[in-house]
Amino acid sequence: MPASYAYLGPEGTFTEVALRTLPETATRELVPMVSVPAALDAVRNGEAEAAFVPIENSVEGGITTTLDELVAGAPLMIYREVLLSITFALLVRPGTKMSEIKTVSAHPAAQPQVRNWMKANLPPDVVWESAASNADGARLVQEGRYDAAFAGEFAAARYGLEALETGIHDAENAQTRFVLVGRPARPAAPTGADKTSVVIWQRDDHPGGLRDLLGEFAVRGVNLMLLQSRPTGKGIGNYCFAIDAEGHISDRRVAEALMGLKRICLEVRYLGSYPRADATVKDVRVPQPGTSDAEFVAAADWVARCQDGRF
Amino acid sequence: MPASYAYLGPEGTFTEVALRTLPETATRELVPMVSVPAALDAVRNGEAEAAFVPIENSVEGGITTTLDELVAGAPLMIYREVLLSITFALLVRPGTKMSEIKTVSAHPAAQPQVRNWMKANLPPDVVWESAASNADGARLVQEGRYDAAFAGEFAAARYGLEALETGIHDAENAQTRFVLVGRPARPAAPTGADKTSVVIWQRDDHPGGLRDLLGEFAVRGVNLMLLQSRPTGKGIGNYCFAIDAEGHISDRRVAEALMGLKRICLEVRYLGSYPRADATVKDVRVPQPGTSDAEFVAAADWVARCQDGRF
Amino acid sequence: MPASYAYLGPEGTFTEVALRTLPETATRELVPMVSVPAALDAVRNGEAEAAFVPIENSVEGGITTTLDELVAGAPLMIYREVLLSITFALLVRPGTKMSEIKTVSAHPAAQPQVRNWMKANLPPDVVWESAASNADGARLVQEGRYDAAFAGEFAAARYGLEALETGIHDAENAQTRFVLVGRPARPAAPTGADKTSVVIWQRDDHPGGLRDLLGEFAVRGVNLMLLQSRPTGKGIGNYCFAIDAEGHISDRRVAEALMGLKRICLEVRYLGSYPRADATVKDVRVPQPGTSDAEFVAAADWVARCQDGRF
Amino acid sequence: MPASYAYLGPEGTFTEVALRTLPETATRELVPMVSVPAALDAVRNGEAEAAFVPIENSVEGGITTTLDELVAGAPLMIYREVLLSITFALLVRPGTKMSEIKTVSAHPAAQPQVRNWMKANLPPDVVWESAASNADGARLVQEGRYDAAFAGEFAAARYGLEALETGIHDAENAQTRFVLVGRPARPAAPTGADKTSVVIWQRDDHPGGLRDLLGEFAVRGVNLMLLQSRPTGKGIGNYCFAIDAEGHISDRRVAEALMGLKRICLEVRYLGSYPRADATVKDVRVPQPGTSDAEFVAAADWVARCQDGRF
Repeated sequence: MPASYAYLGPEGTFTEVALRTLPETATRELVPMVSVPAALDAVRNGEAEAAFVPIENSVEGGITTTLDELVAGAPLMIYREVLLSITFALLVRPGTKMSEIKTVSAHPAAQPQVRNWMKANLPPDVVWESAASNADGARLVQEGRYDAAFAGEFAAARYGLEALETGIHDAENAQTRFVLVGRPARPAAPTGADKTSVVIWQRDDHPGGLRDLLGEFAVRGVNLMLLQSRPTGKGIGNYCFAIDAEGHISDRRVAEALMGLKRICLEVRYLGSYPRADATVKDVRVPQPGTSDAEFVAAADWVARCQDGRF
Repeated sequence: MPASYAYLGPEGTFTEVALRTLPETATRELVPMVSVPAALDAVRNGEAEAAFVPIENSVEGGITTTLDELVAGAPLMIYREVLLSITFALLVRPGTKMSEIKTVSAHPAAQPQVRNWMKANLPPDVVWESAASNADGARLVQEGRYDAAFAGEFAAARYGLEALETGIHDAENAQTRFVLVGRPARPAAPTGADKTSVVIWQRDDHPGGLRDLLGEFAVRGVNLMLLQSRPTGKGIGNYCFAIDAEGHISDRRVAEALMGLKRICLEVRYLGSYPRADATVKDVRVPQPGTSDAEFVAAADWVARCQDGRF
Repeated sequence: MPASYAYLGPEGTFTEVALRTLPETATRELVPMVSVPAALDAVRNGEAEAAFVPIENSVEGGITTTLDELVAGAPLMIYREVLLSITFALLVRPGTKMSEIKTVSAHPAAQPQVRNWMKANLPPDVVWESAASNADGARLVQEGRYDAAFAGEFAAARYGLEALETGIHDAENAQTRFVLVGRPARPAAPTGADKTSVVIWQRDDHPGGLRDLLGEFAVRGVNLMLLQSRPTGKGIGNYCFAIDAEGHISDRRVAEALMGLKRICLEVRYLGSYPRADATVKDVRVPQPGTSDAEFVAAADWVARCQDGRF
Repeated sequence: MPASYAYLGPEGTFTEVALRTLPETATRELVPMVSVPAALDAVRNGEAEAAFVPIENSVEGGITTTLDELVAGAPLMIYREVLLSITFALLVRPGTKMSEIKTVSAHPAAQPQVRNWMKANLPPDVVWESAASNADGARLVQEGRYDAAFAGEFAAARYGLEALETGIHDAENAQTRFVLVGRPARPAAPTGADKTSVVIWQRDDHPGGLRDLLGEFAVRGVNLMLLQSRPTGKGIGNYCFAIDAEGHISDRRVAEALMGLKRICLEVRYLGSYPRADATVKDVRVPQPGTSDAEFVAAADWVARCQDGRF
């Protein structure tokens, strides 16, 4: 029985397309799940080796269900991320003309990306019908319930539809970020272009408190890529912070920054170190002076020699 | 014709209940709108004096639609906030017994608050049916489509239902924060327990960049109450930050911190200063040494005297 | 009766040479005083318009007598600074040859600047005889008490001596900084290349205390040129700090930084803003983004408009 | 041949008294030297095991000769410090009366401590005659050159003088700090009330540069006890900083702070960790939360487990 990857279903969505960009999926069983919690629970209870879920969208922001599932419950770790540009195709039954479209369907999350295009290109009286997923919208067009669906172009073949238009996107650079999540284990080896994710809970609340937490990164020259507050569930005004930092936990500057957080935070949850999907080694900025691994090692060696009186 | 307040409808939801806690609503026409954007647009185009919308929920986090509407488009300002504890009643047609419930309805956002209660109290095979709003769920029970609805207790009378149970809440301290939003004008007078909201865009991205922005508050002893990142729409990795800070823009320490942000940020959008709903003057911490208005005034006076050589 | 400038005497020293570089000395009576306290007291009690004294030496460091006099007692202000390169001439009675020198005299402070030269150029058995000032050493050579004196070349004519060697200096770039000190009055007008001097006393002592004080400058982009601790006289471990910062008190960033110090320090003593002797306008670094006067003014204007609701 | 300690002579000065408070001096030969450089050179070239020299005075500030000798040349380390309260006795030949005193002698450094007492107690026309040391002043009184000398009371017996008055001190709490300096070796074991001395050279000069250096201490909760700038000899405006920090290099927070400095400074010179003379363990403040050794160890362990995926 092959190891399986659970993912946020149904089949035929952007999530599946993003998942299939991972080479190892060729040898895995890919199992669509009804929800993010269901996908992550499959990992937690051992039914799946990993789960693949969206975590962030450049138009809508963080996928709070995913974040909250990672923040609470049994610990999980992120091993990979995938970035997928989100553009839509307008899918119709073969032969349908643009002017004949009276109803159009898609998941509500698609709306911000197609609204302007609709105004410019479809009859003004076209009716929007929300679907449970973009794939589901396409299926309903196949069944004749609606005239057209916004979905990934890849969904056309699956549902016997044709694309009247492709590349539809109101926002330039619209992307969704997906993560492959598993049970805690050794992080992926550093590639030189990595990212480390943690969640932190502040010990107390005072002027400068959050600045001091961020100072643990800044003083070691670690750049932040994301800072996302989430409610702790203890009432308005109580937050934890999901943070993505540049670098890998095996980088000395990152490790020391995490140690600093661990010391001054109420709690820190490590969510993994993994290759960046938005950059390769040659895109990564040179560490600022004094923060390279070599400089950390040299400084530690110097302190050890001072402690021994050999210098 | 009375001035009107638009609010996120329909009638009979928590939003309306929260809105009615504002005394001036007695003399305003209250107009339910189909969406947050619709409510805010009514203010922007002059149809309504103000709009009342949820902005944050202690279980689900920020209401991104509201945040994104405030961040972009014509400037708006927050003049009031209201905190409402969210507990649910289980509403049924009079006479229905707990054991007879086969279907239950509510807005999906209610689910995290009632899930555990359902497991403990309803038959295991009860079916959840999502509704467009909690009020709508109640209406569908009234019409006989479903057996029960989770909604605010106040909805019972409106829909001729009775509450089989009240005070249902999985999470203690579940609250929603609502804001009253209007066109820019002079902020509400300071009460001594105020809050100031801004949105900031970083000029560039470097290690310590965000820490330095927060330092503008910290160095003047201004406490942060909320820091919420939102995508700028320019692709993954590009964020602005919605910030709530303790104090009023007429407090010297807050004004100087805002000036500092204005100078070093790409952009700052002022969203208003208004009374805190979670505190009164006696709950507010004393400013840390050196950050009271009197100390600001004395220091400014001293510098002026130095500039004149009179000291 | 012309206004007089007191200076650290006697005549014929580097101090007098430095003082005479100030154009206005042509119309002032220049009065040598026996000590720095005597010169400054002459200003405090109205006998002199100003006093000219050394404050720092690039080899020996701060002139503590001058610093301590400025830190305590009736307030004084610095209006000008002068930098003088310190190189020595070896002065002898006309006809004396290098090989005939058995004794050499100068103020002890000259020793670090001539020690290596002596080893290389004078007989090894030459005897050093300390003098009360370099001018006094020259006088004693004139009187035949010693064979040679290290002094400024300018002293040769005054004492009828000739210079066997000029430009003697062990340390490259040896300079002394002198200041012209007067009673408090309006500071000199900004030139674009100015310096501001203050003395600060910390309110209390805790980890990060001094860093926070320096943060008042850093957060406004003000560079520090000098930080010199001085004992407060309350026992080992109690210090105040004399600080020179880039810029003029009429620069917004400097004024706001001083206000910040005034608020959080136990005490701040303003010592003046005056033209830099080491730089002209074209040498001065451009203020970092967000810290120019124009940006301060624009930010203050923006906050004022926010306070009024006009934006 | 016993190991010897060199010290700043001559015999009979406060330095010798301070030195003799160290128990091990009972078994050492104590060798007076003519100057601080001579005493330290005796250590550097192996003639002495250690040197005992003044480093700081609560009235006059840092002893720049000592600082500059430690900053430059072959590395040395501080192993002990001694604090000595400085009060003077007025020593005269037996039988001399106060009213008969016409001349009084002492080292110039004594003047700030006796000036007010002189005004109040000696004839107004008394003449001050500077001596090479307080002990030398006493010797000159013994020889009949001067009438009285300010010196430590302990000098009376040595020079056959008697004390007309003891406990003379203008400044309350006047103290001198002395250090015992040796060649680099393993520092003294931590006592729980220790101090660590370093000298740092900044890599470059920019707004916030010095604040960032101090931040390396602050972010780890290490308190600074002394910050003293010294010229580097490269001209006015070029300084290094001698720093005393609370704690021992074997304390994790101190070691990590030193590593941080080593990484971002041009150069760091370690001057030793040694017991504080001004405090015992019970006077030492509790480390701020998150900075104890136990918390450092726990955090390092946690990061190691994260790196291994075991948490």
